Amino acid sequence: MTTKKEPLEELSARGKSSGPNSWSRVSCPCCISSHIEPLVLIQLSENVQLTKQWIMSLISAPVKTGGAQLLVHPGEDMKGDMIVVAAPRCTLLRVTEDLGLCKTYQDGNMTAFSYEDKDNFCNIDDMQRFLTLAERQFIVKHELVMRALDDQRIPGVPAPKGKLKARESSLQKLEKAGIICNITPLHDQKTLTALGKQWYSQKNLWGQPLDGIQAYFGGTIAYYFSFLDFYTLSLFPPAVLGLFITFFLPSINFSVNHTVSEGKEYDDQPSVSSYMVQAVFSMLWSTVFMELWKRRSAALSYRWGTFNLAEQFQEPRPGFHGEIGTNPVTGRLEPLFPDWKRRVRIGLVSVPVVGAFLGMVVMGMGFYFFERLVSGWHKSSDSYFTVALLYLPSIAHIVYTNAGNVYRNVAQKLTEAENHREESSFDYHHTTKVLVFTFFNNFAVLLHITFFKEDLPLLRKRLSSLLIVTQLVNQFTEIVVPFLVDRFMSTSERNLKEDDPEVDHLQAQGSPAFPGLFAEYIELLVQFGYLSLFSCVFPMTAPLLLLNNLTEIRTDAYKLCKLFNKPFSAPVANMGVWQVAFEVLSFISVISNCWLLLLSPPVKALTQDAGLSSGQVLVFAIIVEHALIAGKMILAFIIPDEPDWVRIKREQIEFHSMQALKKQRVKRIQVADTLKDKL
Amino acid sequence: MTTKKEPLEELSARGKSSGPNSWSRVSCPCCISSHIEPLVLIQLSENVQLTKQWIMSLISAPVKTGGAQLLVHPGEDMKGDMIVVAAPRCTLLRVTEDLGLCKTYQDGNMTAFSYEDKDNFCNIDDMQRFLTLAERQFIVKHELVMRALDDQRIPGVPAPKGKLKARESSLQKLEKAGIICNITPLHDQKTLTALGKQWYSQKNLWGQPLDGIQAYFGGTIAYYFSFLDFYTLSLFPPAVLGLFITFFLPSINFSVNHTVSEGKEYDDQPSVSSYMVQAVFSMLWSTVFMELWKRRSAALSYRWGTFNLAEQFQEPRPGFHGEIGTNPVTGRLEPLFPDWKRRVRIGLVSVPVVGAFLGMVVMGMGFYFFERLVSGWHKSSDSYFTVALLYLPSIAHIVYTNAGNVYRNVAQKLTEAENHREESSFDYHHTTKVLVFTFFNNFAVLLHITFFKEDLPLLRKRLSSLLIVTQLVNQFTEIVVPFLVDRFMSTSERNLKEDDPEVDHLQAQGSPAFPGLFAEYIELLVQFGYLSLFSCVFPMTAPLLLLNNLTEIRTDAYKLCKLFNKPFSAPVANMGVWQVAFEVLSFISVISNCWLLLLSPPVKALTQDAGLSSGQVLVFAIIVEHALIAGKMILAFIIPDEPDWVRIKREQIEFHSMQALKKQRVKRIQVADTLKDKL
Repeated sequence: MTTKKEPLEELSARGKSSGPNSWSRVSCPCCISSHIEPLVLIQLSENVQLTKQWIMSLISAPVKTGGAQLLVHPGEDMKGDMIVVAAPRCTLLRVTEDLGLCKTYQDGNMTAFSYEDKDNFCNIDDMQRFLTLAERQFIVKHELVMRALDDQRIPGVPAPKGKLKARESSLQKLEKAGIICNITPLHDQKTLTALGKQWYSQKNLWGQPLDGIQAYFGGTIAYYFSFLDFYTLSLFPPAVLGLFITFFLPSINFSVNHTVSEGKEYDDQPSVSSYMVQAVFSMLWSTVFMELWKRRSAALSYRWGTFNLAEQFQEPRPGFHGEIGTNPVTGRLEPLFPDWKRRVRIGLVSVPVVGAFLGMVVMGMGFYFFERLVSGWHKSSDSYFTVALLYLPSIAHIVYTNAGNVYRNVAQKLTEAENHREESSFDYHHTTKVLVFTFFNNFAVLLHITFFKEDLPLLRKRLSSLLIVTQLVNQFTEIVVPFLVDRFMSTSERNLKEDDPEVDHLQAQGSPAFPGLFAEYIELLVQFGYLSLFSCVFPMTAPLLLLNNLTEIRTDAYKLCKLFNKPFSAPVANMGVWQVAFEVLSFISVISNCWLLLLSPPVKALTQDAGLSSGQVLVFAIIVEHALIAGKMILAFIIPDEPDWVRIKREQIEFHSMQALKKQRVKRIQVADTLKDKL
Repeated sequence: MTTKKEPLEELSARGKSSGPNSWSRVSCPCCISSHIEPLVLIQLSENVQLTKQWIMSLISAPVKTGGAQLLVHPGEDMKGDMIVVAAPRCTLLRVTEDLGLCKTYQDGNMTAFSYEDKDNFCNIDDMQRFLTLAERQFIVKHELVMRALDDQRIPGVPAPKGKLKARESSLQKLEKAGIICNITPLHDQKTLTALGKQWYSQKNLWGQPLDGIQAYFGGTIAYYFSFLDFYTLSLFPPAVLGLFITFFLPSINFSVNHTVSEGKEYDDQPSVSSYMVQAVFSMLWSTVFMELWKRRSAALSYRWGTFNLAEQFQEPRPGFHGEIGTNPVTGRLEPLFPDWKRRVRIGLVSVPVVGAFLGMVVMGMGFYFFERLVSGWHKSSDSYFTVALLYLPSIAHIVYTNAGNVYRNVAQKLTEAENHREESSFDYHHTTKVLVFTFFNNFAVLLHITFFKEDLPLLRKRLSSLLIVTQLVNQFTEIVVPFLVDRFMSTSERNLKEDDPEVDHLQAQGSPAFPGLFAEYIELLVQFGYLSLFSCVFPMTAPLLLLNNLTEIRTDAYKLCKLFNKPFSAPVANMGVWQVAFEVLSFISVISNCWLLLLSPPVKALTQDAGLSSGQVLVFAIIVEHALIAGKMILAFIIPDEPDWVRIKREQIEFHSMQALKKQRVKRIQVADTLKDKL
């Protein structure tokens, strides 16, 4: 990949000196290299020289003394408030094994890396090819946690904040004490430019350099873009169907003009057959889409070597606390926390609290009765002013959904109290909490209109306005704002030339921090909700979403590459909780589609003609709904969750592990016997 | 355990001769033993001497020539229509490893057995202590499958039936051709008598010798009795509550006399509070019960060494067919069949066919409208005759539910067409099909009364009559009939003395074959259904069931020990599909309980007073139902499915396998390098 030597590297390569302004000395002979790559930048608060010295020595100290066994460089700026961190080969390889990453073995299979066996892996001599940039940077971050061996004081920090207890993370302590402001992986401008060119600058409408994204930005981000890619592609069939229904399918009153502002929308209902077609299609489509994505996701996880991560055998995440004891599985000394306590906390505290918040959202919906008022005015006066007013509630709603900060704090605190051992499990529970609330907030109005008001024309109007307003807002915030920021505000980086002192390059990579993928995923989920829950009343949903996604890919890519600090991104094996969220939504869509069919005027007329009571119709609808859910489950069952070749690879590993365990036992006993004989 | 020498063994021990009437010769020196234990009896049809010779030589031939590597004895009767089979030590140990059975290792942990490492397992020198009798017999059955190496003819059998294709099971072919009539594991009378004494003869009301049952009868049967045990114990709380509600809780009209024959049952409704208490309690109870059973089941599976069975790595079951190829995981030559084809067959053939049959049951229910007629008569005439007539439909129903033979055949054929690779997977799918139908059949009337007629008094009457009639029928068929059979028909075994020739002992173990556990499990499931679905209308359900179960344990045990041939029983890790069935029922019970509450007169009066429409009440009930299901799920989540110590053992094995695989790779490479150096 990049073989250019930056000044920092040259310094070290030339002299191997450990003067005040150079890289720290490499501790083991195998790691001495002519090529030290700066990976991560630690920004300190000002005037902490004493603590900086301590941090640097800690980072470069061996793991067994509580350090991170990494390479540090004090930076070269005047203020001395940064540390540049690199990683020696041994550390990189050791952590690769700890993480359970799989790499290409000499036989061509992806195999869990093992340090003892390192020489049989491909590219082992070139760390830049063996590990991706994102992996190297994640490893550095993983090691920077640095657990203290025993109680000690951090020099230069007053007592209450500066006290480190045994097994506590030094890094976390330093961040809490305000010494460390920020830790960022460093951009590699050349690779980034090349990636950007492939990704968003070219005129190709299709295809993203997913492997390149995975290598440069890491697992979670690559999974987001892969999903976005797959989702956009999957939108083609419903988009075509939507266009067809809108423009070609004859509907009962479809000859009436289609513009919204004439007050005639109440007649502008698609026919019962188009309703049916759209509802049944969207139910089948969402299942097939999710099942195929699972297969794709499994294939990607093999391709990217993350299908064998065994987080439960790694060190617990830094925030995890409990009584120090021996982990009965790995034999490592670490905090222990009983599983049942966590389950009780989740079941009896978190779930009820989240439920209470959701209940409050339902109460808060009373506020939308305002809308009925507006709707009444509109009917009586029918002016352009009231038409504008009709859109007010939608806008108010968008504002309201952005005000969940209180809840976000509560969710964070609750998840911390649940004390998850693994980072992924923490993320899972935290995201679930925020997600449920955000989603409910987004859909409260539409669900209210659907299930309580039972007002299809209003739903149709609201859905179309939400789609158009949301898209306009998104396009604005994601294209116009970034462009303006890029143009007028972040001049520093732009004006730097290649031969400017390196420190300026490092400095220029300051704020703003990448806000994370939550907002991106929730946008997709809400979109998917519009499509699968309500699209049968507004068939243009899919085409509009397709249009939106095609620009979304470019703007997200541009944002990530140009506007934010590079984020750390862990190697992951799937989308985590988001996959579950999409699947759940796809099942909820059955309920909503059945209900919408029930409400549609033609069906209503039919049931009235047949003389069925509302209770009987409801029971009938529930039976149909359950049959459809069963159908979806059968479909999901028929499509296996992983491609056959991935399953075989997985089972091979399982089988060989089982065999190896037996063999190893024999070996161990033989060695013991030999020893006994010798004695 | 048993160390007495029976005549058969003595013969072999003395002479090691392989004359016409003795054990076949042991092939490897380590298996020569003074003690050959007859394990399995093969009964042939008459006059098949030629084929008998061939079968015997095949069974004693080594596995690599298509045999079973077992010991055979021609039996000693006049007709020469039986073969007695025993197993040499090597075969037993090899198959123990293949099956993935865990045994006590020298460090005290249950560990997957490995032949190479055999000397470090406890009791390895005494096969009778190392493996249980049931395991030894299952191993013999497992090996008797005998896959032919290439196309050949079975001597003495005409061409179409006698042609053996490569990889086909010789045993299956012989059974189909009618040469082999029956294969039974042999009883060991001494152990059986001792077990029976502990189990059902003693006057102890509580406790079964579960380990003894597991050792003698094997996994599936031991799991059934463990579950029965656990279930009966769990019935105490609802039984106490039921008695309390029936006799102490004041109810609206409870002072009215309680006898059924007076026609006043329509007023005899429990009060709303007792309804509520019973409904809520039974919902919580069923979840806690199932969760605790799962934990117990996990603990038993560790105790009995079956927590590590890896059926997917074993040979496929005999009926499995497909193109012969190399299994990509184990590297073994065997039939291959793509998973997706199976899934398509299940999803698109089996499920719709089963659904159609269930639909037919619903149609067939029209037949029960007869009951309404009878009910009308009863009201108008109110004589003892019509009271008797009232019970007719219940009896007709019991007859009807026993006539599902057509369906059973269809289910068998469908499951065979699904072509499952593993025996357990075949059982799972086959049992599910039969189970769903049987269950539906059993409950059709009650569900019809509940959901369509909405007639609680009738439900109450029907439930009590079903409970009483079923119990009487069961007690009769399970106690009286067995007793009579035992007394007057099976005289042969009883009249034999210890010193009679052994062949008579063997002969006496003829029919009838054990009919399997399906009927036993379905009885429990139906009981559980009565209790969880409907008990709130008839609180005496739980006490009656408790009474029934206490006798059920004894009668089942007596039946199994005295009346039937000993069945083969595979080592299993759980109850399989039955556990799922009980859990599903426990969730369905929420729907039924909510509905019953809705129908109860006091609640009806309440909603009418509040002026709610039937649609609104239904929606409200659905919301409550979903909240309760959520509550059950939280409860199920809080109680972990396996005890901590089992989880730790499991994770330890997983962790060590992972480590061992890495180590082994290094070893393999080192050996390869050494070889390369030498060349």
